[in-house]
Amino acid sequence: MASADGSKLWGGRFVGDTDPIMEKFNASIAYDKRMWDADIRGSKAYAKALEKAKLVTAEEKDNILHGMDQIHDEWAKGVFEVKPGDEDIHTANERRLKELIGEPAGKLHTGRSRNDQVVTDMRLWLRDAISILKGNSLQLITTMVERAAVEIDVLFPGYTHMQRAQPIRWSHWILSHAVALSRDVEQLQEINRRVNVLPLGSGAIAGTPFNIDREMLRQELAFDDISINSMDATGQRDFIAEFLFWASLCLTHLSKMAEDLMLYSTKEFSFLTLSDAYSTGSSLMPQKKNADSLELIRSKAGRVFGREDKEAMFDCFDTVHAVLQVTTGVVSTLKINPSVMEAALSPDMLATDLAYYLVRKGVPFRDAHGISGKAVFLAESKSIPLNQLTVEDLRTASPLFSSDVSAVWDYSSSVEQYSAPGGTAKSSVAAQVEYMRTWLKKQVQ
Amino acid sequence: MASADGSKLWGGRFVGDTDPIMEKFNASIAYDKRMWDADIRGSKAYAKALEKAKLVTAEEKDNILHGMDQIHDEWAKGVFEVKPGDEDIHTANERRLKELIGEPAGKLHTGRSRNDQVVTDMRLWLRDAISILKGNSLQLITTMVERAAVEIDVLFPGYTHMQRAQPIRWSHWILSHAVALSRDVEQLQEINRRVNVLPLGSGAIAGTPFNIDREMLRQELAFDDISINSMDATGQRDFIAEFLFWASLCLTHLSKMAEDLMLYSTKEFSFLTLSDAYSTGSSLMPQKKNADSLELIRSKAGRVFGREDKEAMFDCFDTVHAVLQVTTGVVSTLKINPSVMEAALSPDMLATDLAYYLVRKGVPFRDAHGISGKAVFLAESKSIPLNQLTVEDLRTASPLFSSDVSAVWDYSSSVEQYSAPGGTAKSSVAAQVEYMRTWLKKQVQ
Amino acid sequence: MASADGSKLWGGRFVGDTDPIMEKFNASIAYDKRMWDADIRGSKAYAKALEKAKLVTAEEKDNILHGMDQIHDEWAKGVFEVKPGDEDIHTANERRLKELIGEPAGKLHTGRSRNDQVVTDMRLWLRDAISILKGNSLQLITTMVERAAVEIDVLFPGYTHMQRAQPIRWSHWILSHAVALSRDVEQLQEINRRVNVLPLGSGAIAGTPFNIDREMLRQELAFDDISINSMDATGQRDFIAEFLFWASLCLTHLSKMAEDLMLYSTKEFSFLTLSDAYSTGSSLMPQKKNADSLELIRSKAGRVFGREDKEAMFDCFDTVHAVLQVTTGVVSTLKINPSVMEAALSPDMLATDLAYYLVRKGVPFRDAHGISGKAVFLAESKSIPLNQLTVEDLRTASPLFSSDVSAVWDYSSSVEQYSAPGGTAKSSVAAQVEYMRTWLKKQVQ
Amino acid sequence: MASADGSKLWGGRFVGDTDPIMEKFNASIAYDKRMWDADIRGSKAYAKALEKAKLVTAEEKDNILHGMDQIHDEWAKGVFEVKPGDEDIHTANERRLKELIGEPAGKLHTGRSRNDQVVTDMRLWLRDAISILKGNSLQLITTMVERAAVEIDVLFPGYTHMQRAQPIRWSHWILSHAVALSRDVEQLQEINRRVNVLPLGSGAIAGTPFNIDREMLRQELAFDDISINSMDATGQRDFIAEFLFWASLCLTHLSKMAEDLMLYSTKEFSFLTLSDAYSTGSSLMPQKKNADSLELIRSKAGRVFGREDKEAMFDCFDTVHAVLQVTTGVVSTLKINPSVMEAALSPDMLATDLAYYLVRKGVPFRDAHGISGKAVFLAESKSIPLNQLTVEDLRTASPLFSSDVSAVWDYSSSVEQYSAPGGTAKSSVAAQVEYMRTWLKKQVQ
Repeated sequence: MASADGSKLWGGRFVGDTDPIMEKFNASIAYDKRMWDADIRGSKAYAKALEKAKLVTAEEKDNILHGMDQIHDEWAKGVFEVKPGDEDIHTANERRLKELIGEPAGKLHTGRSRNDQVVTDMRLWLRDAISILKGNSLQLITTMVERAAVEIDVLFPGYTHMQRAQPIRWSHWILSHAVALSRDVEQLQEINRRVNVLPLGSGAIAGTPFNIDREMLRQELAFDDISINSMDATGQRDFIAEFLFWASLCLTHLSKMAEDLMLYSTKEFSFLTLSDAYSTGSSLMPQKKNADSLELIRSKAGRVFGREDKEAMFDCFDTVHAVLQVTTGVVSTLKINPSVMEAALSPDMLATDLAYYLVRKGVPFRDAHGISGKAVFLAESKSIPLNQLTVEDLRTASPLFSSDVSAVWDYSSSVEQYSAPGGTAKSSVAAQVEYMRTWLKKQVQ
Repeated sequence: MASADGSKLWGGRFVGDTDPIMEKFNASIAYDKRMWDADIRGSKAYAKALEKAKLVTAEEKDNILHGMDQIHDEWAKGVFEVKPGDEDIHTANERRLKELIGEPAGKLHTGRSRNDQVVTDMRLWLRDAISILKGNSLQLITTMVERAAVEIDVLFPGYTHMQRAQPIRWSHWILSHAVALSRDVEQLQEINRRVNVLPLGSGAIAGTPFNIDREMLRQELAFDDISINSMDATGQRDFIAEFLFWASLCLTHLSKMAEDLMLYSTKEFSFLTLSDAYSTGSSLMPQKKNADSLELIRSKAGRVFGREDKEAMFDCFDTVHAVLQVTTGVVSTLKINPSVMEAALSPDMLATDLAYYLVRKGVPFRDAHGISGKAVFLAESKSIPLNQLTVEDLRTASPLFSSDVSAVWDYSSSVEQYSAPGGTAKSSVAAQVEYMRTWLKKQVQ
Repeated sequence: MASADGSKLWGGRFVGDTDPIMEKFNASIAYDKRMWDADIRGSKAYAKALEKAKLVTAEEKDNILHGMDQIHDEWAKGVFEVKPGDEDIHTANERRLKELIGEPAGKLHTGRSRNDQVVTDMRLWLRDAISILKGNSLQLITTMVERAAVEIDVLFPGYTHMQRAQPIRWSHWILSHAVALSRDVEQLQEINRRVNVLPLGSGAIAGTPFNIDREMLRQELAFDDISINSMDATGQRDFIAEFLFWASLCLTHLSKMAEDLMLYSTKEFSFLTLSDAYSTGSSLMPQKKNADSLELIRSKAGRVFGREDKEAMFDCFDTVHAVLQVTTGVVSTLKINPSVMEAALSPDMLATDLAYYLVRKGVPFRDAHGISGKAVFLAESKSIPLNQLTVEDLRTASPLFSSDVSAVWDYSSSVEQYSAPGGTAKSSVAAQVEYMRTWLKKQVQ
Repeated sequence: MASADGSKLWGGRFVGDTDPIMEKFNASIAYDKRMWDADIRGSKAYAKALEKAKLVTAEEKDNILHGMDQIHDEWAKGVFEVKPGDEDIHTANERRLKELIGEPAGKLHTGRSRNDQVVTDMRLWLRDAISILKGNSLQLITTMVERAAVEIDVLFPGYTHMQRAQPIRWSHWILSHAVALSRDVEQLQEINRRVNVLPLGSGAIAGTPFNIDREMLRQELAFDDISINSMDATGQRDFIAEFLFWASLCLTHLSKMAEDLMLYSTKEFSFLTLSDAYSTGSSLMPQKKNADSLELIRSKAGRVFGREDKEAMFDCFDTVHAVLQVTTGVVSTLKINPSVMEAALSPDMLATDLAYYLVRKGVPFRDAHGISGKAVFLAESKSIPLNQLTVEDLRTASPLFSSDVSAVWDYSSSVEQYSAPGGTAKSSVAAQVEYMRTWLKKQVQ
């Protein structure tokens, strides 16, 4: 039958060698050239292993190493020329090596598959990227912890469901976010242990048939471990999936903090003012000063990083790298307005304290909660603040109220009650600051 | 308190005018310059509206139009120079206009917000992109329908759960995918109706305070409708969300087809062979010929296109644009192996027909299904194909079997039974081909 | 080799007929029993088609119909008993039919596959669900439009980036959300056209080999069209994917509105107060009144509805069904505080108007924007509101200012400028109300 | 203005105390009752802390403990009665406690917020769930490792891109999946360290104002650590996000394995046969035996587990719990067909070995790859298998071929070359088996 021999009766958009759209679609050099250094390091180590396995001579190895060093210089100086046909960083470097040293270049791929090489380069690159992000995170946390230490005396309303809940320290709020970021750093280090495993020497899927010394490769490239199974080593990208998830969680933390800061910087809240360096104007409205930096930080939380490929890895790194630094800038330069913050505390936020007053006189909490609720209602009916109720007023709700109830209406005293570990009392917040300082010191050892 | 005045006791990474990381983070010129033509069209139309509203003179309008035409030429010739400070395509074009014509450039933004301009440009650009993708889709569907017409006589196994189910026509399989793509085209047109709505004249959020004739703008820019509410017009990006979802569904369709084709092109199935133009080799294994084009197509289904912003819109268009064309290439050039395909039909695939034989003799289907199942088991026990059972063998399962059962064992006859609309009989498949041809003609009118 | 014969040297958790965990894992009766009515309708129509095709007698058909009616009664009265082995609604109903009428029940499945039946039932069910959700949406939109009509005179700050931008009407804000919801209704109707297509008569994949009259089935079940290709008909779930996407977009709209309302209901904004019916208290803090309804609505936007299966379809319907109704309740019962809203307008929000004042005197907008910006800065330096600057003060920024500038400082006049279609002027908002009322009338015809 | 006082001129669906739709929408008892045991454990520990803080007497504490024990019995026996108004497990247990012991029940909530209690219960529950899933995973890995040990001599084709690549051991394939699962177990343990942190004693956000001994609570409930900051403790659900991500990755691993097994169990591959216990039939086609268990396992990879709430946590556990067990069943009961597997090895899969033959004679790999490719082409031109080429034929590609090339055509020898760590040689696979056995032993210590 005519059709089956491929005479295209049904038409079609292309006849020829390789469809150029597919070639372009398939090429990754535009982004994976960022791994040029990792690729060179991997190839140099492999050349040494080939020599040890007697697959190249000492001279050939030296030629390869010198060629690779020259390629390194070209990339470092920005003069490496990517040519048509260089579909990825690996073919580009190998093509260049052949131009520089001739035949021995063809031996470099002995027993090494492209996949073997790609995944080794990705792990080398990501290891460095993780180290940078750890540094960015620690700088941000340090800024937050030291700011919390300095501003420990500022009180303001703690919110739940966007409604005023209880008086807390501003530093308590800062530390709640710093603690979340410290978990991110710990998780990043765990991921790094799974990133820092050598796949090289796995071939396509079956392993390497030559006497390639994988332990020597591991030491040469400073990996912690050697992959256990060659099929798994070349096929899996779990370490990328873990990194992408880590980034999502970290960006979510920064996003939540940015969301609070946006709220606190509205005209209506006026708790703080962003530095001009992190604000922008409007092309239409002359008076506008937008918290664009916070919007950017907040918006990145929803960013989804595609699937487990190189492109996602790079995009993810760039995003988190920028967001961590911008957040550090924002947090270190914003001005707070302590008087506005404290003025936002209102007596109804002490309704829980009023209940606790009764608890201390032996009333079960559930009943005390009800009595305090009645007092809140009474104050609302009279259109007066809760602390303006007389003892007589309060006694209509419970006979246990007496003149000592006046001690309840003090925000500082209220905050100072929360002195258990993790609470918002000054001693407790100071302890958190110390805990975090100690933790930070350990991270950089 | 010292801290609140911003003396940064807690350190920080940056002091100065605007944090350069944030500036870079915020800039979109690298990708949104693709909208240069849309931006120029929008500004030219707006200049005419400004003249009508007496906000620019006829001469100023002409200067703006000429300036914009010159900017158009620069972009078209690839000589437009993006300068530092051009954060997006809109500031770049406006900056250039001012260089070319001086002061009247400053009037072009009267009553128009950046957001107003951005969203107008996005709609203009996307309208064109949708038109291109519709064309790509129709070319692919045409290829599929005509291939189905030519190869209508080829039978092969239809699979469910990756197991052989019933004999069908190869063309029936092709058309099942073509029909899905035709729904995509219809949905794309519905989306286009919601894309093709003019937002311009909405200002920042409140609308325009000048006498801007929005109906004139609509006609000038060939939009179908005018947006109803200015806050909604500048704030919503639903049309992008719809487009991204459309792309996901379309890519899922192409992915499913590619998955089947990958299976059919394995050594074990050998139903078809990809053109060399759509295959690649292995750097390690000399014999390998990989169906890379199919892998690429398949993998794009999982691609997530971030959120509703410009970057996602461009990425999405590029991906679908390439995938549709590569798929057209693959489908038009692959060779099928009809003899292997038909040889893969096996008598057990006619077990349903055997049941139907009994149904036609009055046996309830549930019972007939059971009897046919027994026959399958009997053949397996004897290690013979189902059609090698004797009438006596069959009668142990049901006395209704007689010598006319032999007519069941004919794949062509089996297929020809399915002549109801939508079935795999030749007449039914031919009707589907005609239906699709008629549908295709309607799309290009 | 011993291992290959399955003697499980390697151990294993289960030996027997069918792994009960898998059976449970596979069963869907717990949720798909919601389709009991759709399943009965589909089977009754199919029985009629079987009779027409002479595959059941008139008497058998009548028995099936009567049996099905009885099953319908049992479900309607809540007395239908699901038995072990009823893995889904389809087997449950068929099992029960056999108990009731005996053998003819076995004929009902002639030429019909389970998949054929499942997808027909899903389309019948979803068609009804869509009708309900359309009704819920229209009720919400009606509430919003009528509230906008009544409260058209209330002014308040329009926000961008959470910062005060321009004075607008409260009704303009309401309508911006109503307009988005009206697009959702239109999209839902488009989806319904693709839902309302008959798949029945497609068999497993090849079609039906009997003389089943699909056009009769279509009429009987009130579908608009017949599926074109049997493989596509039984295999695709695009209509579910479309419905899930629709739900995500609709919930995003409701979420954005809820987010604004949460902000407006904070103590700091105090623009509005939720009804007690949509607020809840705190178990710990007696004074708290949380906007839980708004939190719930907001949180549903992120809800992801898994993949295209029945379970996702039901979950999605339930969520949108509840959210639309709760939103209607919230919007219809909240109280606004017009005096607080108008008090939140501040002179700096008229900085754009100040620039427009100059534009009207011939200054290019870009320059006018700069001059107005200077005035804003001057007022800030003097710590006075923008409208307290004297004409002399303003003249330091531009000599074009004169005593008529005082007319700028009127919020009502400012708002009334935006009278182009879609703007926030009273006439323009009233026109939007009329447009929406007309649109609503069309939807219920 | 009339509208602002809430007289609902715009209508609305509901007037009354609390909207019943919202109440139902808000209730979680239907699923969170699974935490009944965790809730009781948490409350018992808290009662002890209250006594130590002198907030309840020894007698009251005993009453609470006895009451809680009785509630435990009721749940354990399935006789606990959930009543209307029990919106979640916490209110249900507290309501019942009050019925049983009266007033002291009201003291149990002193200083404890609902959020404090919820998050403590979730952590207790999840800790147990993780322990179960770890056990399931280890059982599956054990099954796989022991099967790999027994069937180490079976060779079959290793595939890349679904095309035959190189001969490998069947056990090498099994172990590639076992290794991925072992990483999952390690990651699960890391997550568990972050789950196993006590939040109790954090109050709403500010901490606890009473002398609650959090260290005593930690010991009582066997947590590893105490949360650092009370706002973070009650507000964050990172541990759920981590668990959901873990589940996604684990299911992806199982899905990939299932995908391979589905392929291997097709008629066309025929490498293996599933046990009947993990297959199902078709309602229409009597001969069908579908690999439903594999489809189920494969399909769960795409399952998205919503957001970080309790419902997602339960759904996620149930899914992974079932999938791990079903996979164990499938893997332990499937039969392989070693003869078919080995027959699928074809000489072209040794083309890499042919290149290596030349490498060993000093040819650079890139050249050797090209020569071997020519040989493949030559064999295809002659329509003979690669190993049927004569030495003369081969010499047309390279003069280095001599009669010793015949040693290349041996699949066992080929496989035995890959003896470096991680490779597919028998010694290497045996070493992997030993490594995994040792690892498994460590996990259960």
